[in-house]
Amino acid sequence: MYMTQTLHRAARLHPTKLATIYGDRRTDYGSMQDRVSRFAGALRKLGVSPGDRVGMLSLNSDRYLEYYFSVYWAGGVVNPANIRWSANEIAYSFADCDTQVLLIDDQFLPMLGAIRELAPCVKTVIHCGDAATPEGLLNYEWLIAETAPCDDAMRSGEDLAGIFYTGGTTGFPKGVMLPHRALYANGLTLVTEGIDTRRFIGLHAAPMFHLADHAFTNALAMGGGTHVMLPMFNPQAVAETIAREKVNAAMLVPTMIQMLVDAPVTHQYDLSSLEFMLYGGSPIAEAVVDRTLALMPHVKMMQAYGMTEVAPVATVLPHEFHIGEGRQKGKTRSAGRPAMICDVRIVDTNDVEVPRGTIGEVAVRGPGVMLGYWNKPKETAEAIKDGWMHTGDGGYMDDEGFVYIADRIKDMIVTGGENVYSIEVENAVAKYPGVMQCAVIGIPDDKWGEVVHVFVVPHAGASVTIEAIQEHCKAMIANYKLPRSLEIIEALPMSGAGKILKNKLREKFWAGRDRKVG
Amino acid sequence: MYMTQTLHRAARLHPTKLATIYGDRRTDYGSMQDRVSRFAGALRKLGVSPGDRVGMLSLNSDRYLEYYFSVYWAGGVVNPANIRWSANEIAYSFADCDTQVLLIDDQFLPMLGAIRELAPCVKTVIHCGDAATPEGLLNYEWLIAETAPCDDAMRSGEDLAGIFYTGGTTGFPKGVMLPHRALYANGLTLVTEGIDTRRFIGLHAAPMFHLADHAFTNALAMGGGTHVMLPMFNPQAVAETIAREKVNAAMLVPTMIQMLVDAPVTHQYDLSSLEFMLYGGSPIAEAVVDRTLALMPHVKMMQAYGMTEVAPVATVLPHEFHIGEGRQKGKTRSAGRPAMICDVRIVDTNDVEVPRGTIGEVAVRGPGVMLGYWNKPKETAEAIKDGWMHTGDGGYMDDEGFVYIADRIKDMIVTGGENVYSIEVENAVAKYPGVMQCAVIGIPDDKWGEVVHVFVVPHAGASVTIEAIQEHCKAMIANYKLPRSLEIIEALPMSGAGKILKNKLREKFWAGRDRKVG
Repeated sequence: MYMTQTLHRAARLHPTKLATIYGDRRTDYGSMQDRVSRFAGALRKLGVSPGDRVGMLSLNSDRYLEYYFSVYWAGGVVNPANIRWSANEIAYSFADCDTQVLLIDDQFLPMLGAIRELAPCVKTVIHCGDAATPEGLLNYEWLIAETAPCDDAMRSGEDLAGIFYTGGTTGFPKGVMLPHRALYANGLTLVTEGIDTRRFIGLHAAPMFHLADHAFTNALAMGGGTHVMLPMFNPQAVAETIAREKVNAAMLVPTMIQMLVDAPVTHQYDLSSLEFMLYGGSPIAEAVVDRTLALMPHVKMMQAYGMTEVAPVATVLPHEFHIGEGRQKGKTRSAGRPAMICDVRIVDTNDVEVPRGTIGEVAVRGPGVMLGYWNKPKETAEAIKDGWMHTGDGGYMDDEGFVYIADRIKDMIVTGGENVYSIEVENAVAKYPGVMQCAVIGIPDDKWGEVVHVFVVPHAGASVTIEAIQEHCKAMIANYKLPRSLEIIEALPMSGAGKILKNKLREKFWAGRDRKVG
Repeated sequence: MYMTQTLHRAARLHPTKLATIYGDRRTDYGSMQDRVSRFAGALRKLGVSPGDRVGMLSLNSDRYLEYYFSVYWAGGVVNPANIRWSANEIAYSFADCDTQVLLIDDQFLPMLGAIRELAPCVKTVIHCGDAATPEGLLNYEWLIAETAPCDDAMRSGEDLAGIFYTGGTTGFPKGVMLPHRALYANGLTLVTEGIDTRRFIGLHAAPMFHLADHAFTNALAMGGGTHVMLPMFNPQAVAETIAREKVNAAMLVPTMIQMLVDAPVTHQYDLSSLEFMLYGGSPIAEAVVDRTLALMPHVKMMQAYGMTEVAPVATVLPHEFHIGEGRQKGKTRSAGRPAMICDVRIVDTNDVEVPRGTIGEVAVRGPGVMLGYWNKPKETAEAIKDGWMHTGDGGYMDDEGFVYIADRIKDMIVTGGENVYSIEVENAVAKYPGVMQCAVIGIPDDKWGEVVHVFVVPHAGASVTIEAIQEHCKAMIANYKLPRSLEIIEALPMSGAGKILKNKLREKFWAGRDRKVG
């Protein structure tokens, strides 16, 4: 299994079919293969040897796709940078794995000085934007024009294909090493769900550095579909592009879907071509499903759950579970069932599978599982045991194999030797009439190790006491799960992605103490 | 990628769903996993170490499926014997790769003495039939009952999974070594064509030792479908089983399909459940397609072309090309287009890709390609070059990527340095009114190397001369392709599978001479 297979096949079967659309620029599969083999030749001349990392710091474009394929073709390893990170974090991700060649677009040129200072390993910089190329940088198109095509290095299987940095919010980022086999498998995830990507005109509006979009990329490439790139998400641009290019498939995250369907301007465009919408990152609110299907009744939705370490899909929730009987059975709140080529189980801290309905850690085995974290053998050994990737997500599986994600394991509270998942407690507390929002954490306790502490944002004028909450929750959760203390708070601290920052909430209780997790 | 993944997944997701139906015997996925892990434990106790071969000589049954999974689970390598071969050939296939443990059913017990004599490596014999177990043999069910489950050996990727012997008609059989990656990929071939095998109740009527059925097995296993086994093909039994078990998918070869639709008895059964019919081995006559769809208009047909060495599928022809516009464009005569995870090209003798429409050798690259032939490094090196399996089949690709198989390369005639594919000449000759059947071979010639010679079976009373044939063919084929000599023959020598035995026809011309082929 080699990542360039899809390009070889598409260029042979339909060389004149459009491979990419970016603004006014259109490239067919025959030309794309030619460009990729030339840029790969250029990378080799610049010293990229098999296994060498090549970085990318760019918004979406057709060249982002060419970058992926060219690096694979040259025998190198992709290292696409998270465009949301600071120069500091990005430089760390280049320096950590000794990335010597970097592609950068116009948008990120201003960051280049800082990055080179922090990551002096970056010796060669290729400008892949459309503005004038600054002095001292190589130009992407010149390299393609000047270089003869080279042969495909044909790296495959267990050969390293990419390092994807993840986890910037909890300490230093970790480089997830994915071999060709894992990235190829991620492309198969959609296809094995019966999604026919051959006829796809697929929109890249979510960032292409991220594996969520890369899985969509590879699924589309596998069918030899057409890729349409937008530099970044914007509801109007998405709607306008769908209408103009007759886009029929898109990968988005739930907040993007919400913005798309709620922006009045999108309703002015003809969105009737859109047939398939893949989303990931979190379950979707049922109201958003309804608004999406009201606007685009012809769309089939699919959720994919996973993480970079499993390249990235572990479970999928097909359209049928977003509506009708599937929704009535509560499946829309799940992350779906294990993808066809994946095995998923829920385990306790001794790595023993727990009964259905019991919360434990989600573990994933299959061809998508990473080789490990770059230069982090200890973290790798903790994450992968007997071939099972331990996701750090708490969740349970129902009798029909649907997986429900409850919590990050690190947010789990251990009190008197018992595991308490904060989501269970939060669900109970949230049902109390005076509670608008709440968050549960573990705070240190000399007797119990940790005890359950709840933060409550009350409705205006409501009075919420610990006694009332305990009384209210008793019928729903076991005694040891009941909050022991309560704190009224004006607003919960949130991340940019809308997640409650529990480490912020824990800070004052755990200052100077070491919290053992999981 | 490991072959047991599908079983792990199915047993976890739906343990009470039927895995196998064989006569009155029904086994669900939970029980099947239990039985497989116990039989795997028994194999280990019998000395099967990772990589050791385990033979199987049996008609189809539910235990044939358990055999495959148990050997993979134990860490062994399957070696399923061709039930059409003589004891001599079968024993060769066991002895060649030192197979020490053999499963055998009732049908083949009479052959056991001869096999053990010719293959003394076979030390342990397990009787997997339903009759009384002869003295000296182990009993399959006793072993399962007496042995505790063992852990899955989790061999995967490039680890050898099976040796499949092929090519008995041309010298000694060769052992095709297929790793887990290749067999897993063969299961993906159907799935990537959008065939939803999750809801399949699939019929095994074609022999399960063969990779054609094994690909169907693995595709079905991937979706966690239900397998229905018949000991062997028989039109009435197939029809009766379809009706009784509501079979909705089947893998057959064209002659079986023809027998099924032409047997009056099958018309008495309710075949309305059947939705999908996979066939392989050869293109199908359009008349047979018509009769099939007349009897079962609800059926979708799909052809798969390949060979054991590519595990086995290279190209697929979906239903739409059996009817309507697809058929009018002549696609039904093709072997279809490269499967999604395959790359196929047509090359000349220098391994350079030829233009579309030009006949050359079909070469295949992808995850299905074998590791090589067991203990035959020379033959392996000749077959696989730069990752491309050279199939030995002559064919061409049209502008839309459809592959047409013309000839075995060894049947190609080289005359005056030009390549002549016998099928081209045969197609031209066959259009002459007096010709009922014909076959073209190359015969030695001092000046041209070889010249074209044609055997003709004339219609009763017809006169067919070489001059008339030359005159007739001139308008259709180039001068150097014209037959130079003609021989009237009563009947063409045929193999059991209905193929013309050209080596028989060549015999008298080439006695004592060395024919250079390809």
